[in-house]
Amino acid sequence: MGKKITPRNEDYSKWYNDIVSEAGLAESSAVRGCMVIKPYGFSIWELMKSQLDKMFKDTGHENAYFPLFVPKSLFEAEEKNAEGFAKECAVVTHYRLKNDPDKKGKLIVDPDSKLEEELIVRPTSEAIIWSTYKNWIQSYRDLPILINQWANVVRWEMRTRLFLRTSEFLWQEGHTAHQTKEEATQEALQMLDIYEEFTEKIAAVKVIKGTKSEIEKFAGAKVTYSIEAMMLDKKALQAGTSHELGQNFSKAFEIQYSDENNNLAHPFQTSWGVSTRLIGMIIMAHGDDQCLKLPPAIAPTQVVIIPIIPKNADSEKILKLANQIKEMLSDFRVHLDDREEVSPGFKFNEWELKGVPIRLELGPKDIENQSMVLAKRYNLEKMKMGLDEVEKIVTILDEIQTEMLKKAKTEAAGNTIDIENYDEFKMKMEKGGFFNSPWCGKLECEEKIKEETGAEIRVIPFNSENTSKKCIYCKQQSTSVPIFARGY
Amino acid sequence: MGKKITPRNEDYSKWYNDIVSEAGLAESSAVRGCMVIKPYGFSIWELMKSQLDKMFKDTGHENAYFPLFVPKSLFEAEEKNAEGFAKECAVVTHYRLKNDPDKKGKLIVDPDSKLEEELIVRPTSEAIIWSTYKNWIQSYRDLPILINQWANVVRWEMRTRLFLRTSEFLWQEGHTAHQTKEEATQEALQMLDIYEEFTEKIAAVKVIKGTKSEIEKFAGAKVTYSIEAMMLDKKALQAGTSHELGQNFSKAFEIQYSDENNNLAHPFQTSWGVSTRLIGMIIMAHGDDQCLKLPPAIAPTQVVIIPIIPKNADSEKILKLANQIKEMLSDFRVHLDDREEVSPGFKFNEWELKGVPIRLELGPKDIENQSMVLAKRYNLEKMKMGLDEVEKIVTILDEIQTEMLKKAKTEAAGNTIDIENYDEFKMKMEKGGFFNSPWCGKLECEEKIKEETGAEIRVIPFNSENTSKKCIYCKQQSTSVPIFARGY
Repeated sequence: MGKKITPRNEDYSKWYNDIVSEAGLAESSAVRGCMVIKPYGFSIWELMKSQLDKMFKDTGHENAYFPLFVPKSLFEAEEKNAEGFAKECAVVTHYRLKNDPDKKGKLIVDPDSKLEEELIVRPTSEAIIWSTYKNWIQSYRDLPILINQWANVVRWEMRTRLFLRTSEFLWQEGHTAHQTKEEATQEALQMLDIYEEFTEKIAAVKVIKGTKSEIEKFAGAKVTYSIEAMMLDKKALQAGTSHELGQNFSKAFEIQYSDENNNLAHPFQTSWGVSTRLIGMIIMAHGDDQCLKLPPAIAPTQVVIIPIIPKNADSEKILKLANQIKEMLSDFRVHLDDREEVSPGFKFNEWELKGVPIRLELGPKDIENQSMVLAKRYNLEKMKMGLDEVEKIVTILDEIQTEMLKKAKTEAAGNTIDIENYDEFKMKMEKGGFFNSPWCGKLECEEKIKEETGAEIRVIPFNSENTSKKCIYCKQQSTSVPIFARGY
Repeated sequence: MGKKITPRNEDYSKWYNDIVSEAGLAESSAVRGCMVIKPYGFSIWELMKSQLDKMFKDTGHENAYFPLFVPKSLFEAEEKNAEGFAKECAVVTHYRLKNDPDKKGKLIVDPDSKLEEELIVRPTSEAIIWSTYKNWIQSYRDLPILINQWANVVRWEMRTRLFLRTSEFLWQEGHTAHQTKEEATQEALQMLDIYEEFTEKIAAVKVIKGTKSEIEKFAGAKVTYSIEAMMLDKKALQAGTSHELGQNFSKAFEIQYSDENNNLAHPFQTSWGVSTRLIGMIIMAHGDDQCLKLPPAIAPTQVVIIPIIPKNADSEKILKLANQIKEMLSDFRVHLDDREEVSPGFKFNEWELKGVPIRLELGPKDIENQSMVLAKRYNLEKMKMGLDEVEKIVTILDEIQTEMLKKAKTEAAGNTIDIENYDEFKMKMEKGGFFNSPWCGKLECEEKIKEETGAEIRVIPFNSENTSKKCIYCKQQSTSVPIFARGY
């Protein structure tokens, strides 16, 4: 009985797609590369969003909303940023349709409605936001500006993958302005810490913090910091990024403020974001051959109660008790599945697919023994629990949250190795993993390694500067020991 | 001292714009017709959103997310809907930019990236959502579908007004599918009730519920229900709408399900929405010549504490007490304005502009007397309050919320009149107001009245059917007594 998930070891990619589909998270749409986020997937996003939003607000950030469109002249103002996104821009050129004179009931674009200046659907909002900040920043008293936006963005993608790479996705983008470079650095690092805290404590995924190499950094940034997570196929996923943009945009838009001494100065800038991609991360960090597995902190249903009512059993009594237990668990996201048209087995399977952390089974025999069965999704363990022990569930949810992170950490540690020999690197990279390998800092070696092994510098961990080793590729003096891996 | 708001009676339109600007709610952007919603304006929207969202979820609705773009062929599938929006569509025709060969550093649209099929930026999502529902609806067991989406939409507007009419705006759109017409009617009316409850209890604005006339209804709908509110210039504002769409879209997309008897049937549909326009409503229903006035339920700051520290006063003592009071009010959205660089008078003015319901003033003399001054924004009243009476604030906030609705109701009632004589109608309409006037039900009379007086049928209130009167225009037998008014 129940839906079949392709085993992970058989076909990883199919396994991933099966989870997205069978857990009811998302599906492809009629629009090339754009997804429909289904209610269950969206409720996970809502939980992520509300917890991140609180963390942003607790650190003094406010939300605002800026236009979806960027006029082409603003878009191209910061050249590096524009160049980085130019090839994947959806462009609005007209603002009206009219009846097709040749086909009744059909519409065509009205050529008379051509825009004087084309509008880019935002792939990221630095340009439109900094063109707005221009009017907000006159004096040092106007700084810092600490603003975040929850929005949809569009980056035209040729090869898409639900959650991981779609032409439209949902994200948050923080855009801050500061007086000094030091403040901007501090802000960018603070947000990276928040992303790390969120990813580890809430999403139960271990990440590594550091900087991106020159070619991997955000278009227009001076420095890009990122958190990288290891997926179950031992590939890396960039879970969040935080950028120092220096004065690039404040210069491009000619933004100056007068400082305490009445001197004009350009403000410094950061931006930082995470997206619906995090849902893909959850799938690939925790999922198993039974499907999705959710950490309690982002599970739309944390506890599902399933009454088991055999023929001739006292259904009223069982349901009454089930409702009482639901009531006792009202501090949690709890659901009583009292559907009559489907069997308990069907329900077990359905909630297992959806990754609900705890299932409580309640049948006539359990009641006789004043107990119930508690099944944990994360390790598929079952245990008996007294009806008077319901309050233990808070501890068990905590335990699950902790254990899932612990498992993710162990998994990541077990697949992270120090390698200084390039032949070994090439051979072992076939099986994936995070490789700590010394690097000279030169683009050429980085590109050669990628070309020959598919592995990129995912992140240069903080404090990994090291001049005592030899570059794994060219054997010259190393500058750091980055993490090399194949990635998403 | 303080910013000046143009008096309402001097120039209503300027008064409105001044409030938007001086309260820090929004501003025009570099994109024609699109606005920037500033942090303070956005936090009002967040409060509206969270309370509406709870009401939707409490009635069994779930959130999901559908693509921003609608392929032209889907857009035109339901003809009436397409026709209604065709003239205001932003159209994406290309997906790439390239370097301008003639101008270094500039970009042009790459003609090679022309899309095979144009994409419409959603003006509303019926088409894209119902093309998705097609795969979700096979059996009567799949019904009802009760889904809501919070999203941005684009309707190209020639004459825009911040919050009231912008090319891009934020809204929620519910899209539901049902087995029977009766269920769909019930759903549409339920959501209208929710909008009414929200508008009256949360936004403190009196509304009138009813149906729209044929020409005023939503493109593609069978029936449009709406709530209409009266603004302070006695013009009407449509605050929310709920539509029965019959089987229009399920037929256009050939969606059928098998019912209990294995017969194929087309599901029935509703959609319903409110938008950031509600912020415009708040301004125009409550504002005064001192600027914005917020009902406590949607005030980002409900209570502001302003310490008054003369030279030589014991600032530490005052601030300590201010902090204690803040602590005692931690169940509310409370802010202690302890800025040193600006005067208390400056702060009074600033928070008055922002419409904060309660201001607490705390100076050395107050402390001596174990009291403080409480100023209410809604009626500009001041009162003394004992330091040990802080708990009274919960009651005062309730009172303000109630009184604001009461005032809005009185205002609306005072400007709603029964008129059956067309000459009187024409004369009095110059001064605005809601006119209950009998109507024969014919489009011709409706159009003539609009042409001659600028007044539209804003809503045909429930239970206003009436065949005992004579149409105010043609003097033939009436069918109902709608509300005529000029509107936004």
